[in-house]
Amino acid sequence: MPETLPIDGNEAAARSAYALSEVIAIYPITPASNMGEWCDDQAAKGAKNIWGSVPAVVELQSEAGAAGAAHGAVTGGALTATFTASQGLLLKIPVLYKIAGELSPFVAHVAARSLATHALSIFGDHSDVMAARGAGLAMLASGSVQEAHDLAAVAHLAALESRIPFLHFFDGFRTSHEVHKIETLGEDDFRALVDEPAVRRLRARALDPERPALKGSSQNPDVFFQGREAANPFYFDCPEKTQAVMDRFAKRTGRAYRLFDYYGHPEAQRVIMLMGSGAGAAQEAADAINARGGRVGVLQVRLYRPFCAPALLRALPRTVRAVAALDRCKEPGAPGEPLFLDVATALQEAWAGGQTPWARMPRAINGRYGLASKEFTPAMAAAVFAELARGEPQPRFTVGIKDDVTRLSLDYESEFSTEAPETTRAVFFGLGADGTVGANKNTIKIIAQHSDLHAQGYFVYDSKKSGSLTVSHLRFGPKPIRSTYLIRQAQFVACHAPQLLERVDVLGLAAPGGTFLLNTSEPEKAFANLPREAQLALIDKKLAFYAIDAYILARAAGLGPRINTVMQVCFFEITKLLPGYLELVKAAIRKTYGGKSEELVERNFRVVEQALRHLRRVEVPARPDATRRRGVELPGSAPEFVRNFTRELMAGRGDELPVG
Amino acid sequence: MPETLPIDGNEAAARSAYALSEVIAIYPITPASNMGEWCDDQAAKGAKNIWGSVPAVVELQSEAGAAGAAHGAVTGGALTATFTASQGLLLKIPVLYKIAGELSPFVAHVAARSLATHALSIFGDHSDVMAARGAGLAMLASGSVQEAHDLAAVAHLAALESRIPFLHFFDGFRTSHEVHKIETLGEDDFRALVDEPAVRRLRARALDPERPALKGSSQNPDVFFQGREAANPFYFDCPEKTQAVMDRFAKRTGRAYRLFDYYGHPEAQRVIMLMGSGAGAAQEAADAINARGGRVGVLQVRLYRPFCAPALLRALPRTVRAVAALDRCKEPGAPGEPLFLDVATALQEAWAGGQTPWARMPRAINGRYGLASKEFTPAMAAAVFAELARGEPQPRFTVGIKDDVTRLSLDYESEFSTEAPETTRAVFFGLGADGTVGANKNTIKIIAQHSDLHAQGYFVYDSKKSGSLTVSHLRFGPKPIRSTYLIRQAQFVACHAPQLLERVDVLGLAAPGGTFLLNTSEPEKAFANLPREAQLALIDKKLAFYAIDAYILARAAGLGPRINTVMQVCFFEITKLLPGYLELVKAAIRKTYGGKSEELVERNFRVVEQALRHLRRVEVPARPDATRRRGVELPGSAPEFVRNFTRELMAGRGDELPVG
Repeated sequence: MPETLPIDGNEAAARSAYALSEVIAIYPITPASNMGEWCDDQAAKGAKNIWGSVPAVVELQSEAGAAGAAHGAVTGGALTATFTASQGLLLKIPVLYKIAGELSPFVAHVAARSLATHALSIFGDHSDVMAARGAGLAMLASGSVQEAHDLAAVAHLAALESRIPFLHFFDGFRTSHEVHKIETLGEDDFRALVDEPAVRRLRARALDPERPALKGSSQNPDVFFQGREAANPFYFDCPEKTQAVMDRFAKRTGRAYRLFDYYGHPEAQRVIMLMGSGAGAAQEAADAINARGGRVGVLQVRLYRPFCAPALLRALPRTVRAVAALDRCKEPGAPGEPLFLDVATALQEAWAGGQTPWARMPRAINGRYGLASKEFTPAMAAAVFAELARGEPQPRFTVGIKDDVTRLSLDYESEFSTEAPETTRAVFFGLGADGTVGANKNTIKIIAQHSDLHAQGYFVYDSKKSGSLTVSHLRFGPKPIRSTYLIRQAQFVACHAPQLLERVDVLGLAAPGGTFLLNTSEPEKAFANLPREAQLALIDKKLAFYAIDAYILARAAGLGPRINTVMQVCFFEITKLLPGYLELVKAAIRKTYGGKSEELVERNFRVVEQALRHLRRVEVPARPDATRRRGVELPGSAPEFVRNFTRELMAGRGDELPVG
Repeated sequence: MPETLPIDGNEAAARSAYALSEVIAIYPITPASNMGEWCDDQAAKGAKNIWGSVPAVVELQSEAGAAGAAHGAVTGGALTATFTASQGLLLKIPVLYKIAGELSPFVAHVAARSLATHALSIFGDHSDVMAARGAGLAMLASGSVQEAHDLAAVAHLAALESRIPFLHFFDGFRTSHEVHKIETLGEDDFRALVDEPAVRRLRARALDPERPALKGSSQNPDVFFQGREAANPFYFDCPEKTQAVMDRFAKRTGRAYRLFDYYGHPEAQRVIMLMGSGAGAAQEAADAINARGGRVGVLQVRLYRPFCAPALLRALPRTVRAVAALDRCKEPGAPGEPLFLDVATALQEAWAGGQTPWARMPRAINGRYGLASKEFTPAMAAAVFAELARGEPQPRFTVGIKDDVTRLSLDYESEFSTEAPETTRAVFFGLGADGTVGANKNTIKIIAQHSDLHAQGYFVYDSKKSGSLTVSHLRFGPKPIRSTYLIRQAQFVACHAPQLLERVDVLGLAAPGGTFLLNTSEPEKAFANLPREAQLALIDKKLAFYAIDAYILARAAGLGPRINTVMQVCFFEITKLLPGYLELVKAAIRKTYGGKSEELVERNFRVVEQALRHLRRVEVPARPDATRRRGVELPGSAPEFVRNFTRELMAGRGDELPVG
């Protein structure tokens, strides 16, 4: 049955893959691991795909092995999927050339992640999928959790019908780990959408000792080239077949997708083209600019391969004068990043062919953004639109950083905001593994299930995992949420570990007039104990200040250091987001702990009541009285590099460091 | 000392790599293996690089291991090289991203080979190097054996000076295995060209426990993007530094190269752009067309990465109206092949920027050619020039095959020939491992050393190696030879195994008025024993026909089945290419066998004399008398696929099979 569920992008994609696969070959790599884990878990529970069988979920010895297993499975006529990212995808490339060369329709779902270059990073960008773009797979890009679910299904269906294997990808972390309330597809939907004759044709093509056929031979110069060209018709037909699947999908679900989705002013003069989660931020910027009389738009690329230039040109407004292709990757030495080269070529050919509605050739410029999950905000998109308005726009640029070396970066107004006033934004500072993230996911689940509010949660960890900073960014609102970036102005800020205030600018994210909730062992001295900067922020921003000693309450209830229930109750109590939340929190507690022990349930119930009793509003005086300042203490002997560079990282200001 | 040597492209590149390296990490893969083998052999003999040390030539457990070893070596401050191709290059890609990301100047020499897709092929095209183009290496393309030697050196020198690692590539087989008389660089040349301060800077950057430094860390979203952009200045400077190295090289050697080398009419309207060995064939076509009043040219891409669009635009004639970018690879689903996307983008930006001399935007079209060593001839290049002259040229095409499915292929006049009349062309049909190829290489060596003639040899094997057909294509002439394609009209054709006449159209390659030499056990019945088609060819083409029983002579001299000396002597005797050849052949025999036994030398001397005595001119009657026809006998029960397809392959007509 279709359901409304708050899940992350990995689960969203995995659900479609699981329903439509018989063999799932996996090997874990961040940030894609959860897709394999979810499927493995489902198979262990005996969950069935839409044909009534439990998919074989097989973990191999490496990603190369997973690719080899997938190759064998699909060649044997099985509906096959795999999941991967980054270097894992690189290890699969040799086999992907084979699978595509043999027109075997399997699907790889990729939580796109940067490749290790000057440094390794587990975070998200498109370097990995771009490194695989020569292999001959169709490539479909999702920009949100809902899309990761929907287009995962489209990828499986279109692969089956076109015989082209699909690589379906979405942004690592930003989409793979964002929790979002989405509409899921039910078994009936999948059944209605799948092309059963295509399934039978796949099985009929299977290698079979009863019907011997030759595949994957060694060919010499005499016939190899001809054999390679024989695949052309399949690639030529793939875009149309993919659009046909999307149209069927829209009819069934009401959610419509196109190969290139245009959003914005119908007579836009300036257009940003991009793929993945950045589209959400760019669309918000376009709305804001158009609301002020601008004429801009966003062209979101969904089917990146096979690249259908006529569809791109049809989707572009006839009025366009300048386009910016934004690439979330960097291929040093290339004349432009991959998407830009495709776009510029499409413009060149259309213009030289004389079949365009344009008065003059549109300018095309190329920007890099968002490498390794660097933020991409509406402010940055607005900077790109502003650049496009210039007579001589910068042909190559970066956005989101300050490049003081090659001066490619665009400046952007960090104050530019498109946050909807009706959306509640809450940010929680915690320590890795302290339960903050789990509690927030639980909060989203409760709100998603018991209200009509849309809900989004994104969780910033650093790669060191346990023990370091986590920041949870939650949005709730009556309208769909497409803000694919971190919250910068939260009406509610909570700090679950008071020592964080000593080194991080926690209240920098508080919106004026908002609320600050602090867990502290001395609630009565909550204000006095703050560093001077935090006191000033409370005063200047006129924040309502609440404090509670969650540690002592949790300990008293026998819950040890697990302060999550206390803090969750305080959040609900202060924000009043959900009437009757108390019963829902208790029901959640019963659901979580009921299977374990009644005693544990009681303890949590007790702590809920204690939380409400001890939560206190703290008076904020008119003037600060602290002399202690926030900051990282370094020994005087620290070398210059540590003082200028490492200290900034430790203070959470790495984003502001320039290239130099 | 600089020398004039007849060597193949692999040895040509390996010689430069060896002279300029301290660590050479290898793993064998066709067609690049010989580079590693040559270096291994040199190191075993104690040969020194220009710094007076014997390079460490280390064979690893796979190409991934070779890349890892190279990464470690260059990080440790060693001048480092590796050799590879095809899937071997794919296995190196993850490490190449690292090496480039860390700006470590090593060099990979690649004998470019197709990647396994619908079928595996050991033959040459650019699929492999294109699959690696995202990694951030500079990429330098050689189109001939001389260039493979020269640009291998340029790659090492430019890497050192720019800090960008280089991938230097040339066409597998066509260049890697072509034997060509070239000018080699001497130790003094290398010493004069190398930038010693840059060597010292490389060593100073080495990881060293005495001077600890951090490399290859894990970075989070805060600083990864900035770190990635810090490499920009090195990439921006690389083209200029590479040109500076080329200029120094030209001053020293007289051989001049540019990032983009233009050849042809200074006011060309139609230009072909390509890289690798195809440039030779395209240049010949351009000469022929310009000689008839055409205005065409060829732009040979040497520095493909970093791609320097301004240098490309400067190299293009201002008069250009249409360009064809030819790619020796296929990336299904891409809007165009890699080189074309770069070229079309350069045109788009130049035009939209309003800084071009053109009256209108040039048309740009894109063709694929030469996949898996498919022939690329002047006739095919002429077909591309003809396509460019059409009002509405086909935007995407193939050339060199007949595509009856998607009809992308251009027709070409197979009669179009640009062979120089002063060049002697000789073709030898033999069986794998029968000594024919070895004898021909020896012939080239003798001629190269003892005359001013230019010399080229190319050897067509199929991948099954021993026992199947080999065809040796030899050219000798007073002018430089840039014919990077097989001979179609040979003045001299030899057949070293008479049974080949029964299934292969040996005399199809004979030029009218030429000579045919046949090894047969019945020289007196030489004509009568021929199949009817061969008799007709001898008569129609008015060929001079010679026969000898080389088998019996070799056996009588105690040489067993080794007929190579007999056939070599006959070739020299008939063609009169080299006055006084007899002493040279004998000297070569003494050099080859002298170390083994005087007895063996004597036997070979004897066989030389016997050959001259028994070589006989065969009368060719006016009419054929044979009824037996050439052809592959198939059992009547053979299935249709075998009759229509396999039979054609067996008859050596696979090239003519269409895509369908």
